[in-house]
Amino acid sequence: MVTMNEGERLDYLLAEDNMHIIQSPDVFAFSLDAVLLAHFAYVPIRKGAILDLCTGNGVIPLLLSRRTNASITGVEIQERLADMAKRSVRLNGLANRLTMIHGDLKDMKSVLGHSAFDVVTCNPPYFPTPAKTEHNQNDHLTIARHEVFSTLEDVVKACKLHVRPGGKVAMVHRPGRLVDIITLFRQYKIEPKRLQLVYPKRGRDANMLLIEGIRDGKADLTILPPLYIYNADNTYTTEAEGIIYGKQ
Amino acid sequence: MVTMNEGERLDYLLAEDNMHIIQSPDVFAFSLDAVLLAHFAYVPIRKGAILDLCTGNGVIPLLLSRRTNASITGVEIQERLADMAKRSVRLNGLANRLTMIHGDLKDMKSVLGHSAFDVVTCNPPYFPTPAKTEHNQNDHLTIARHEVFSTLEDVVKACKLHVRPGGKVAMVHRPGRLVDIITLFRQYKIEPKRLQLVYPKRGRDANMLLIEGIRDGKADLTILPPLYIYNADNTYTTEAEGIIYGKQ
Repeated sequence: MVTMNEGERLDYLLAEDNMHIIQSPDVFAFSLDAVLLAHFAYVPIRKGAILDLCTGNGVIPLLLSRRTNASITGVEIQERLADMAKRSVRLNGLANRLTMIHGDLKDMKSVLGHSAFDVVTCNPPYFPTPAKTEHNQNDHLTIARHEVFSTLEDVVKACKLHVRPGGKVAMVHRPGRLVDIITLFRQYKIEPKRLQLVYPKRGRDANMLLIEGIRDGKADLTILPPLYIYNADNTYTTEAEGIIYGKQ
Repeated sequence: MVTMNEGERLDYLLAEDNMHIIQSPDVFAFSLDAVLLAHFAYVPIRKGAILDLCTGNGVIPLLLSRRTNASITGVEIQERLADMAKRSVRLNGLANRLTMIHGDLKDMKSVLGHSAFDVVTCNPPYFPTPAKTEHNQNDHLTIARHEVFSTLEDVVKACKLHVRPGGKVAMVHRPGRLVDIITLFRQYKIEPKRLQLVYPKRGRDANMLLIEGIRDGKADLTILPPLYIYNADNTYTTEAEGIIYGKQ
């Protein structure tokens, strides 16, 4: 029996798989970005260990659990979100493989050791910390969206700490930060190997990027075909639909 | 009267404008990459000064001369190519605005000063220097394609030296080097601002990139819509055709 708190609702994550997720529009609801990252990241199929930083309500671990038998650990700094994630894991009967931790990614060494994961994924806050007055009225959303508790460098540093040499780090972010990401990845010895740009529709600038690096990898980046989300008539493209509805 | 040497031929560069270029298949012939860069780079329209490093037979200055009234200087380390470039300038009656210099981009400070250009363009050698035995049999082509005389860092350093603060640096290169380019641009205070990926056709990985940075610029990268060169039936796409035939 899983308790639902006030303002929370149970959404379908993957209708075909009967997978559900607890979210609350006031606090946090997963975005397309997380879904695309969960599709983009390479994962070991049969076994291994995956870490998802800034896991929010656990959407990425839940989605990845359909692609791998590896154990998956999520870390979330907001207790209320980590609690939703824990309940969603139980709700979907995944407690044997998925572990959700309430904690600060800057402080996980004592809990998770170092170099212990084959893959680290992260959908971090996108925006630099605004002045206090500009903060989103809703602190939960502000923390999820802005670099309040961890900067991009904190995130990359944690990825480097926890991924094993030769392991993969996958991240979703905004194009405006690509230069920062690439610079930080190199600084922390995570060599970018695959990059995909996401475009809202044809003819528009990219509004999202997916990047994967290999710890201590050899320099050689592949830039994948672009991913378009909407057709000109605002329906999903076949490719986006396949990803969103778990058909790919 | 312009002399043609053995093995050289006179090709149309822009048929509609009656612009010609001297090239020699044995030594150097311009590529699509240069044409795309000449289209991609922002240039001042009425006046100003543009520098093209690794200019080869001068294809980029010649193409840019149709988009701007600025003075354009090309620098080429191979005497035979610089000589072709000089003759093409005369042939097209552009000697009042275009200057071709035979010289090493690492050694242009005494000739060109520093921070003297509004825009610097460059289509550098793409490949790290191979072992001597692997060198292309043809030294001219090897020098144009491999980092024999200048590394990517030499090139970026020269761009930084010659562009004015607030001026633009535009480059064409391979996706495999994006990480190096971005890292070096930042190291030399050229902040990447516009990036466009070029794909041979839909569904394929990118095989070329166009990047523009601003010296001492603020961090904020825009990733433009992708450019596809060929349709599925191997004809040029409308967009590529427009660029190649100078209709855009």
